Amino acid sequence: MIAIEDKKKRLVVPQTLKGFRDLMPSDMIARNAVVEKIRSVYEKYGFVPLDTPVLEYLTTLVGTGGEETNKLLFRLESPEREPIAMRFDLTVPYARLLAQYPGQLRLPFRRYHIGPVFRADKPGPGRFRQFVQFDIDAAGSESVAVDAEVVAAMAEAMRTLGLGRGEFQIRVNDRKLVDALLVGSGITNREIQKQVLRVIDKLAKVGTEDIRKELGEGRVDESGDPIKGVGLSAGIIDKLLEFISVKGTSRTDVLSAVALLLPKTPVSEVAIQEMTELNQALASLRVVEDEAAFDPSLMRGLDYYTGPVFEAHLPAAPQFGSVMGGGRFDQLVARFLDQSIAATGASIGLDRLMEALVQLGKVQTTPTLTKVLVLSLQGVPTSELLSIASDLRAEAIPTEVFFGGSKVGFRDQLSAANAKQVPIAVILGEDEFKAGNVSIKDLRAGAKARAGILDPEEYKKFGKAGQVTITRCDLVKTVKQML
Amino acid sequence: MIAIEDKKKRLVVPQTLKGFRDLMPSDMIARNAVVEKIRSVYEKYGFVPLDTPVLEYLTTLVGTGGEETNKLLFRLESPEREPIAMRFDLTVPYARLLAQYPGQLRLPFRRYHIGPVFRADKPGPGRFRQFVQFDIDAAGSESVAVDAEVVAAMAEAMRTLGLGRGEFQIRVNDRKLVDALLVGSGITNREIQKQVLRVIDKLAKVGTEDIRKELGEGRVDESGDPIKGVGLSAGIIDKLLEFISVKGTSRTDVLSAVALLLPKTPVSEVAIQEMTELNQALASLRVVEDEAAFDPSLMRGLDYYTGPVFEAHLPAAPQFGSVMGGGRFDQLVARFLDQSIAATGASIGLDRLMEALVQLGKVQTTPTLTKVLVLSLQGVPTSELLSIASDLRAEAIPTEVFFGGSKVGFRDQLSAANAKQVPIAVILGEDEFKAGNVSIKDLRAGAKARAGILDPEEYKKFGKAGQVTITRCDLVKTVKQML
Repeated sequence: MIAIEDKKKRLVVPQTLKGFRDLMPSDMIARNAVVEKIRSVYEKYGFVPLDTPVLEYLTTLVGTGGEETNKLLFRLESPEREPIAMRFDLTVPYARLLAQYPGQLRLPFRRYHIGPVFRADKPGPGRFRQFVQFDIDAAGSESVAVDAEVVAAMAEAMRTLGLGRGEFQIRVNDRKLVDALLVGSGITNREIQKQVLRVIDKLAKVGTEDIRKELGEGRVDESGDPIKGVGLSAGIIDKLLEFISVKGTSRTDVLSAVALLLPKTPVSEVAIQEMTELNQALASLRVVEDEAAFDPSLMRGLDYYTGPVFEAHLPAAPQFGSVMGGGRFDQLVARFLDQSIAATGASIGLDRLMEALVQLGKVQTTPTLTKVLVLSLQGVPTSELLSIASDLRAEAIPTEVFFGGSKVGFRDQLSAANAKQVPIAVILGEDEFKAGNVSIKDLRAGAKARAGILDPEEYKKFGKAGQVTITRCDLVKTVKQML
Repeated sequence: MIAIEDKKKRLVVPQTLKGFRDLMPSDMIARNAVVEKIRSVYEKYGFVPLDTPVLEYLTTLVGTGGEETNKLLFRLESPEREPIAMRFDLTVPYARLLAQYPGQLRLPFRRYHIGPVFRADKPGPGRFRQFVQFDIDAAGSESVAVDAEVVAAMAEAMRTLGLGRGEFQIRVNDRKLVDALLVGSGITNREIQKQVLRVIDKLAKVGTEDIRKELGEGRVDESGDPIKGVGLSAGIIDKLLEFISVKGTSRTDVLSAVALLLPKTPVSEVAIQEMTELNQALASLRVVEDEAAFDPSLMRGLDYYTGPVFEAHLPAAPQFGSVMGGGRFDQLVARFLDQSIAATGASIGLDRLMEALVQLGKVQTTPTLTKVLVLSLQGVPTSELLSIASDLRAEAIPTEVFFGGSKVGFRDQLSAANAKQVPIAVILGEDEFKAGNVSIKDLRAGAKARAGILDPEEYKKFGKAGQVTITRCDLVKTVKQML
């Protein structure tokens, strides 16, 4: 007894960290297909792949995403005892890179980057501490035509994933518009401007009335905790609420309405001009109104945005929030370099997007890519099974031989093939082998024929449905026809 | 002055951590192409994709790869203050996964996994602290036919990358052979067996004579440090050295020679039988002798191997060492589960493989995938440039419009296209635009025509080489013909 207990004690519990998860083949097969589709769109827009390390100096990362982000860093020490951390996004490393290789990276420069990012956040449904971002960013261009190209690439990516008209919507705004409103109302303090942005960013979550309180004197939340207000006057709050409530049937309508609300200042004129150009560029890139709409209430949480911001959501799956988002961050590189480099881009949260696509039935999940399982039956030499697999693979047909131990019989092997949704089984018994024959069974046909049959005797009849016996020479040809 | 100094002090130095690196587009484009080739081979062999987190519980990782590996772990704390670490390979997480989902993962189960791993190693040329592994592993099969399939998949991956006969070689051995020799010689202590393996593993690095000393009384290395010996008797050392020196022109030859050297025990018989079956399976899978050879001196460093081991190297690039390696690890899952699950697999060190392939001229590196750069010249509206890009992208032609600021002139834009090796430039000047025309320039033709010309006047003549002016309507058709 003691020996057994000792042994048990020594076992390591196999478990994933809290907030982390393993992705099974059915997840990964679907994900790889989605990544390939998006990648081909991004490459069409001139973005090229790039990769940076998972770990960065702590100083590279802290303070870039705001105080909230600092708290979310996974921190550790390098072997040289320097403070380092795991990246929380791919944008800050991109800014670091632009500053680090001024000679090597000729501007303008567009790259895409797929990689895991890490946030020590409170885990929840669909919220993980490691998740994959798929980013595009274009540096060295001040023109809003490039912001339009980013939005167009986002829209085309969505279309390529099978999302049609009305199934996705990209909201577009410009931080300069809000700045113009605030500055025009006399609010020039940068810290207060940021606070206003953060409050408005909560609009969809808490509603207009709570926003009004938070912009003014503050409020008490559901749990009874006080939320400090920004302390704006009622007049300015009214203007802000009117501004963020602007809706319209077209981007031009929204722009006209916004222009009427903004104080006439040079800042406003620049902002309105920028949005007008952005609208024209979107039209030239054939991004239609219901794909990308102007929405003055869109703020985006991160501190580093300086111009246009954008966010994509799926109206039929609102619980996932935004599945893509981005904007212009012309000042982020200036953190590393004695000059600024204009940059704009967008990021897909791949985990969230995948969940939404699965729920909307836009991706088929299958646990395998294997097309043929060669059963391993008594009296047939292993060499013959491997030779069959080899012939099929030579024709690019993904094939596995069942090597699960000699005790696993015919039925269990077939059941394994069905469970994995392998479409075809190659069955080679001793007699068939001696006669130079082989049987091929279409498992899809069997599953289809059996569907809905309840009588066991009836059911058994379909055991041989879709099965043919042929000579070994005709194996590859027959499998190809069946697929 | 003070203000300027203050500002300078606040800049963050843009730098990559020691032992880490950024991968530029030319690296990543080549790498993605290589990954796709290997992936399609692995999928043909029935392996399906899977992913696990970068971070694991410390207890999951420590002690699995031997004492050396423990020292190489990047350790940190979870938000819940548990000791965690970054994975150092993909095999241990795979073993953890097999133990964690016994119901969900039906055996036998084959998966591939591509991902970064982390080792706090001493950085050196070609040795990084973060590198990408590309693994295949098959669980639930004791049959050496599956080891043969792993070797066959490795061989086909190499062939697919353009490595022909003699350009790669996979060395294959079985740990059971060495075990048989040691046990037959009376060395049954597991710790001493491990020490012997580790010493022999250094053969290629230090040579036979130093190995002899390390297996016996020990030696003093070049720096004057003493290396403790294993303390074997001269008789056993002679036998071991004879064993690991066995060479032959075929796998069968090597096996016969090895069989003569081993003491006749049940352990030896099992080992010889296993290698005989492995040889037959390799033959059935059409892995020829010069692709995979038996080599009794191959040990592989990691502690967890229990049967066949394999390693691939490129004879023309010996400095890169092994670019792929693996073996059978039937006991690793038993660390997490009250039973063992047979498993075997192989790992590609992608960074090392890429460097070797580049050196051998087996991959073409190019800084971009973009096929067309649309120049942005004065007097032509942005909307027209975006519309051209849109038309070309609709035909799946990767296109970028040059948005680098109005100050960048015609020559500099063309020079940017040449630097990025974009094959085609679309040139649209004000006059052409007004006439409804557009010029298309084949930059490859220009580069070719100019090659070798030294006279500046001669050189200038080729400025218009490969350039045609057509109507705007014929744009897409003409670009397609040129590509």
